[in-house]
Amino acid sequence: MDYRAAFRNALDRVRSEGRYRVFADLKRHRGEFPRATWTRGDGSTSDVTVWCSNDYLGQGQNPVVLDAMHRAIEEAGAGSGGTRNISGTTHYHVELEHELADLHGKESALLFTSGYVSNEASLSTLYKILPGLIVFSDELNHNSMISGIRAGKREQRRVFRHNDLEHLEQLLIEADPEAPKLIAFESVYSMDGDIADIRGTIALAKKYGAMTYIDEVHAVGMYGPRGAGVAERDGMMAEIDIIEGTLGKAFGVMGGYIAADRVIVDAIRSYADGFIFTTSLPPALAAGAVASIRYLKEHNEVRVAHQERAAALKARLKRAGLPVMPSVSHIVPVLVGDPVHCKMISDILLEDHGIYVQPINYPTVPRGTERLRFTPSPAHTDGMMDELAEALEALWVRCNVKRIGGYAA
Amino acid sequence: MDYRAAFRNALDRVRSEGRYRVFADLKRHRGEFPRATWTRGDGSTSDVTVWCSNDYLGQGQNPVVLDAMHRAIEEAGAGSGGTRNISGTTHYHVELEHELADLHGKESALLFTSGYVSNEASLSTLYKILPGLIVFSDELNHNSMISGIRAGKREQRRVFRHNDLEHLEQLLIEADPEAPKLIAFESVYSMDGDIADIRGTIALAKKYGAMTYIDEVHAVGMYGPRGAGVAERDGMMAEIDIIEGTLGKAFGVMGGYIAADRVIVDAIRSYADGFIFTTSLPPALAAGAVASIRYLKEHNEVRVAHQERAAALKARLKRAGLPVMPSVSHIVPVLVGDPVHCKMISDILLEDHGIYVQPINYPTVPRGTERLRFTPSPAHTDGMMDELAEALEALWVRCNVKRIGGYAA
Repeated sequence: MDYRAAFRNALDRVRSEGRYRVFADLKRHRGEFPRATWTRGDGSTSDVTVWCSNDYLGQGQNPVVLDAMHRAIEEAGAGSGGTRNISGTTHYHVELEHELADLHGKESALLFTSGYVSNEASLSTLYKILPGLIVFSDELNHNSMISGIRAGKREQRRVFRHNDLEHLEQLLIEADPEAPKLIAFESVYSMDGDIADIRGTIALAKKYGAMTYIDEVHAVGMYGPRGAGVAERDGMMAEIDIIEGTLGKAFGVMGGYIAADRVIVDAIRSYADGFIFTTSLPPALAAGAVASIRYLKEHNEVRVAHQERAAALKARLKRAGLPVMPSVSHIVPVLVGDPVHCKMISDILLEDHGIYVQPINYPTVPRGTERLRFTPSPAHTDGMMDELAEALEALWVRCNVKRIGGYAA
Repeated sequence: MDYRAAFRNALDRVRSEGRYRVFADLKRHRGEFPRATWTRGDGSTSDVTVWCSNDYLGQGQNPVVLDAMHRAIEEAGAGSGGTRNISGTTHYHVELEHELADLHGKESALLFTSGYVSNEASLSTLYKILPGLIVFSDELNHNSMISGIRAGKREQRRVFRHNDLEHLEQLLIEADPEAPKLIAFESVYSMDGDIADIRGTIALAKKYGAMTYIDEVHAVGMYGPRGAGVAERDGMMAEIDIIEGTLGKAFGVMGGYIAADRVIVDAIRSYADGFIFTTSLPPALAAGAVASIRYLKEHNEVRVAHQERAAALKARLKRAGLPVMPSVSHIVPVLVGDPVHCKMISDILLEDHGIYVQPINYPTVPRGTERLRFTPSPAHTDGMMDELAEALEALWVRCNVKRIGGYAA
């Protein structure tokens, strides 16, 4: 068995599909977000503007967050030193879970090491707690949700067309009325920027006796009067059974969580392998997250500024005639439709214009819908938007010309 | 469907098996490790000595680690703001991966958000890269390895008896000679403190054309002249194909990784969902880990002190007539053999003696082998060991008396 050849073949497949990823080595500079230094493979550097960060509100630079982290490091050191059960529950973790429960108006919350783990561990564990559970999953749910849902048997999984409540209802009707059911969906879908009909989904859940699980990772901090997400904005938070969120995007730190009734949280806490058997978050991350959540609860003006910047960028790119996809959120996707062009445009933006935006190719999005995905923050200025719009306009012309002329990359 | 009842039933099952976990709320104090403040449910507090931390060497308190974290927070902020591919690769991540590759003498290394994720994501991904792969797994492998290995079909998984190379060879003989094979095992098994025969395992791997994957999470930092683990100590590091380790135990921070040939790392990097679709570690954690690894490469005296403390504790507890299990590592397990007694002894130690050690019950260890598991660090003094031995001696007498007298907890 030639193992090296097998690994090389696997890499060749990725390369041949134009989706071999080269990570950009970036160094952000506190206080200058979204500016950063990009280091090339040869060691040379350039200053760039970051246009694709999920630190949507710049909280990763907020002094109240950084101060809380510094203090926790001084008080308690670096890592937690253990799983939650074996010496790894610190006062910071307890405080953060209280803060998260309060944010979502739930009895309880449970912290995971990441949003990915929170989805995978929670969803896979629900099958253990609810024998015979059927999960109804939006077809565009995130990989972490799918990974958790796949823990169930084939007959325990139903996939409904994206945001299609008619299809969801049809699947609910077809399922055994006695079986426990869960509808798993997201609020903001991060690659398209569209938003689920939470009210309609909950109505169906009630009608057919299903529980609801919502992923609000691209919404917490950014929607609702206290930043609890779209369910809060829509007045539906109390109706959702399990809310999942992240501390690694708008809150600017790292980690994931669920918030729910105490009995639900306690059962998942007691059965979820991905929660039980892993070292807990460092105290400093928990402390930074508490500070960030509290800050965003009280500073709605950050959310207002964020939405204004997103609207401004969409308007500017549309004026330039660029194919902005119909997002109703803070996410601004621009369609390219080809993986090679998508990568090439992104490379030229970085090298020639100091503009950093990753190409979003398959498998993150379906083939043929390859795109650039911009995430303007309150710190992205009009001047930066002008630079971006001009660069894109020029590149669109250039690439279209070359494409028409038979350009083969 | 009464969902609340289902969740309550699940919790009742855990409680009836004596394995409902109550997390101790601890606050460690930098510079005073292993001392900490314990906060009870009612808000009252006590000072305790922590005897069950996996911050084995106290690196979570080392000023070189904390200074590196402070500096990174000042330079780059809190979170990374994205997945590794989408703006989340910082200079700190790149530097850490170079440091890890150097530590293990491999071409390349790949960082994950935790040791759990590194095992689950890497092992499950190998099935995608090597079609028909058969994994040979030690029966006591950690939950995270099992979780990854379970991604394969039933016929792709073989479990061999713990550290039993004869059984392993028998299974290798029985398998299709043409199939790709992987032997997955740990170096130090953390609940018993025994150590695998790495040389013998590699000999079998070569004989039957299998790759090897070793989990060194309870060994990195602590064994080998530069702290690369037991494979380094035994002179076998170059023979192992994939080494997996953690930054959250002896290195005192958080995160997991693999180190291997470049082509192996690059393929896993390109196919592992648990790596691709998750926010990367905060820059400060990567910076702290780099500082910790470099420090431990150069300070072998910390490892010498650690082994001396472990030997001292084992000798002291044996002198006191306590059933110390036959560990050959830094881990000191003491057999209790009953989950209720194990929990009770641990509770009394905490409440009456200011000694914090978690009961280790099923499912972490097999039923009937419930134990207390002590992890002495270089910072645990003779005086602390005297206190511990005296408390245990008294409790063993007390509990045995009560058990003989028909004590029912």
